[in-house]
Amino acid sequence: MGERGRRPGSPDTRAAILAAARELFADRGFSGATIRAIAAHAGVDPALVHHYYGTKADLLVASLELPVDPREVLAPVAALGPEGAGERLMATFLSVWDDPEIGVRLRAFARHVLEPGAEVMVREGFLGALILPLGETMGIDQPGRRMPLVASQIIGLVMMRYVLEVEPIASMPPEELVATLGPALQRYLTGPLPEVGAPE
Amino acid sequence: MGERGRRPGSPDTRAAILAAARELFADRGFSGATIRAIAAHAGVDPALVHHYYGTKADLLVASLELPVDPREVLAPVAALGPEGAGERLMATFLSVWDDPEIGVRLRAFARHVLEPGAEVMVREGFLGALILPLGETMGIDQPGRRMPLVASQIIGLVMMRYVLEVEPIASMPPEELVATLGPALQRYLTGPLPEVGAPE
Repeated sequence: MGERGRRPGSPDTRAAILAAARELFADRGFSGATIRAIAAHAGVDPALVHHYYGTKADLLVASLELPVDPREVLAPVAALGPEGAGERLMATFLSVWDDPEIGVRLRAFARHVLEPGAEVMVREGFLGALILPLGETMGIDQPGRRMPLVASQIIGLVMMRYVLEVEPIASMPPEELVATLGPALQRYLTGPLPEVGAPE
Repeated sequence: MGERGRRPGSPDTRAAILAAARELFADRGFSGATIRAIAAHAGVDPALVHHYYGTKADLLVASLELPVDPREVLAPVAALGPEGAGERLMATFLSVWDDPEIGVRLRAFARHVLEPGAEVMVREGFLGALILPLGETMGIDQPGRRMPLVASQIIGLVMMRYVLEVEPIASMPPEELVATLGPALQRYLTGPLPEVGAPE
């Protein structure tokens, strides 16, 4: 056992870091919770946090217990640029959520979104740190305005198809959903946006 | 004090009908829960259910404790037909949800959507009995396919703007949301739908 009674890298240390991350992300949001504060809360050196969990966004993915890393799944979609991205995004999204094993765990995640403490993680962490950067990678203009629109349609699809299971969306073949919702996503990604009035 | 020890029309009777309706809608869904079964469960005559609550859809609105009747709010939108309905629908929707007093109660309703028992009421009752008929009134083709698409975008908007409060959608002026999401709804209402393969 180490000098402080806890061996660095032991399951205990990793679990303590993860518990501290969850607590601080929920309390302060993704940007408010620094690696330094998380490390202090867990009683470890900040370098150890980086060593075990990588970047703060990596730590967020670990602390959300997501069955897949959305950045890994969606990076290939974003890398191909904006043209046709709406349909590619929808097809990739459905391939993950329709997977029986991953899908069960994603549904459980979706059901926890409304629990106290989960919201700030979803709002700032999941959307801000994981989804928003995809728009930047893709090279669209105004990603901060466009990606939340994309997210709004995708969250609504998750609710209708996987959580509330409303027909005919719940049983719709993925190809039909891609053809129906892909163009809507494409419009949000690259279509016209209304002019925003000058601030008063 | 009536013959059965309960005065028809007393607050008790009305409450018993409402409690029975909630229980049976949750257990059997909107179509599965008949007025006859609800009346039997409440220990009253079916005629009394109709007398106090009107149609089964009226009873659903009462049992959901909605602060507004979506049919009343949206009927004028639907009555004007499909042209421009996307923007009208969005503007009307926002005027209700952005109202400080009604909005608070609608947010509370939205938060309960994921609770056990609430789902079947939302799926069959709220969407099936209240929203779907609007498409029929509006006179669009394939309302059973188009209205759930509209609902998917609106549910996603509710989550982003009112529940998770994701920026910039949470603070966006209604006019900007109407101009941004109205055309998306219009596309679902009257735009092209992919051809569906013949049943196998």
